[in-house]
Amino acid sequence: MKTTAVIMAGGRGERFWPKSRNSRPKQFLSLTKDGETMIQKTVKRLLPLVEAEDIFIVTNSAYIGLVHDQLPDIPKENILAEPCARNTAPCIAFAAAVIGRKYDDAVMLVLPSDHLIGYEDLYAKTLKKAIDVSLEGKNLVTIGITPDYPETGYGYIKFGNETAEGNSDAYKVDRFVEKPDLPTAKEYLASGKYLWNSGMFVWKISSIMANLKEFMPAIYEGALRIGEAFGTENYTEVLSKEFYAFTSESIDFGIMEKADDIYTLPGSFGWDDVGNWLAVERINEVDADKNYIEGNVISIGSERATICGGKRLIAAVGVEDLIIVDTDDAVLICSKNNTQDVKKVIAQLNEQGRTSLV
Amino acid sequence: MKTTAVIMAGGRGERFWPKSRNSRPKQFLSLTKDGETMIQKTVKRLLPLVEAEDIFIVTNSAYIGLVHDQLPDIPKENILAEPCARNTAPCIAFAAAVIGRKYDDAVMLVLPSDHLIGYEDLYAKTLKKAIDVSLEGKNLVTIGITPDYPETGYGYIKFGNETAEGNSDAYKVDRFVEKPDLPTAKEYLASGKYLWNSGMFVWKISSIMANLKEFMPAIYEGALRIGEAFGTENYTEVLSKEFYAFTSESIDFGIMEKADDIYTLPGSFGWDDVGNWLAVERINEVDADKNYIEGNVISIGSERATICGGKRLIAAVGVEDLIIVDTDDAVLICSKNNTQDVKKVIAQLNEQGRTSLV
Repeated sequence: MKTTAVIMAGGRGERFWPKSRNSRPKQFLSLTKDGETMIQKTVKRLLPLVEAEDIFIVTNSAYIGLVHDQLPDIPKENILAEPCARNTAPCIAFAAAVIGRKYDDAVMLVLPSDHLIGYEDLYAKTLKKAIDVSLEGKNLVTIGITPDYPETGYGYIKFGNETAEGNSDAYKVDRFVEKPDLPTAKEYLASGKYLWNSGMFVWKISSIMANLKEFMPAIYEGALRIGEAFGTENYTEVLSKEFYAFTSESIDFGIMEKADDIYTLPGSFGWDDVGNWLAVERINEVDADKNYIEGNVISIGSERATICGGKRLIAAVGVEDLIIVDTDDAVLICSKNNTQDVKKVIAQLNEQGRTSLV
Repeated sequence: MKTTAVIMAGGRGERFWPKSRNSRPKQFLSLTKDGETMIQKTVKRLLPLVEAEDIFIVTNSAYIGLVHDQLPDIPKENILAEPCARNTAPCIAFAAAVIGRKYDDAVMLVLPSDHLIGYEDLYAKTLKKAIDVSLEGKNLVTIGITPDYPETGYGYIKFGNETAEGNSDAYKVDRFVEKPDLPTAKEYLASGKYLWNSGMFVWKISSIMANLKEFMPAIYEGALRIGEAFGTENYTEVLSKEFYAFTSESIDFGIMEKADDIYTLPGSFGWDDVGNWLAVERINEVDADKNYIEGNVISIGSERATICGGKRLIAAVGVEDLIIVDTDDAVLICSKNNTQDVKKVIAQLNEQGRTSLV
């Protein structure tokens, strides 16, 4: 059976302002010194598993041009434009319906476009195992990340003792749980029975469609109509009509928390969700003073600073635990303890009507 | 007798980089919200005491245009161009010789161009008293600043109990002392007998010339030759020849530490030497979080920050005790504890040959 991949690339990534903008969200940025963007890395690491012509990108219609430019090897017809954002369930249903028109049945990897993977061989191995498990019955497989600290910013997957037939690395999922508070996260970590929910899924088209039909029939029906129109002159009209009518729902809530036959494969492959500017020093090498510095920067006695220079000179003198990001029209200077407040800057800019900066 | 003023405006002001540059030193910058430059303020506060036509500006020849632009009311012939920097003694001798050609004798106020005064009425009163004292004999008068903390960055003036004839506020100077270490500075402060050396002097042309003749005869002779050539076609040539031949010496070391009849007037008029970026929050109003913020800035939760925005947006999120200064081609982000290291940035830029940034 063919293996296909669906990369979800509709996100906004406010937390990487001022580099990320409405016109260029995080997945289209490079946050590493090699200059590759997040989505380019996502595709590249899939190529040992999936042929380029079987990789599909679902994104907002505003970003079609960016996807074309950054991923010239992906066929144009594989770039699926969402007319509006409706969370992951409609996105996945849409892609499954389109792929279902191309192949009778196929394995479908569902992957975020804006995460990084440190150990790509281990990643590929884990996905291969997930593919094997997905071939059995109507199994839905999710990749769980083995946690190494009690993170409160992610949802968790609780797994049981039962393993999948033929693959003792895949565990039957007990339940999905929301982001915990810190004491709960510590209990999860100590129990050894919880994984981070990474938002990576593997299943057959037939399996996910069967589950959509059962648990989200309106989205299932709408997605089928989009799939039928795909390639016809009515496509744009049908797509728009159906998509705006979809309710905004996540696949986790809509399917994964309800379906049977859900398995998880614990992954330990250096996953990083690159959630905010603090990630940059994790995913790049730092100097002896624990600074990550790139671009047009002079640093005198700075420590634990992340500095991304632009065209103008950034002179950082004696700064500590700061994030400094220069762009043509805005500079961010942010304490490492306050990265969550970057979105308040965007809120103020929106209030002030300074939309070109957002 | 006429009262004249000489404003020394040849300084470089590296510590206000990136706003100050070789092409625009500190005295030609505004560091206050009113937009007036330091030298404009210096002239303005003199006008109750000295007519504009009797105010002389000594500056580097490179800054003649800036002085013209910023001080259109000062006659062009009063702007005296030093061909090279030779510290304060040649600068003062040069100005004294030129003024000596214009007036038979006159009182000469000698003032830095880049300090701020909080209480201009008290300042004028102090200078008036100094003028009175200077009229007696060959008195040389220096304005001392009553210290309010044990500063180690200034020289001090030790005064005795003897006061000037006819003015009991002016004390005979005991000696001038170099910048002290902290324990010494604390002793000075506790003794009540030491003042900060502000670099402001008052004397008659005849008094300073007599002292120059006695203690710095080469500079005296050279200055006289410049004065003789002033207004003739040989002036530029003579000025250049004599000035390059001068040794670089301060008036403090060359005259004040050696001459007799030196008096000091203790001044308490809100003097600030505006020595580095830390001054900006002192000389401007701060907000409830002790921030001073001007220009294109969004601040979220910042405290005790000095932020001077430029054309682009500066977004400061949760920063504390930082100085942030934006200009078209460079941004400084400096810890308040490290303002002395700004000159290291300039040193690196010079090493890298990036002179347009210096």
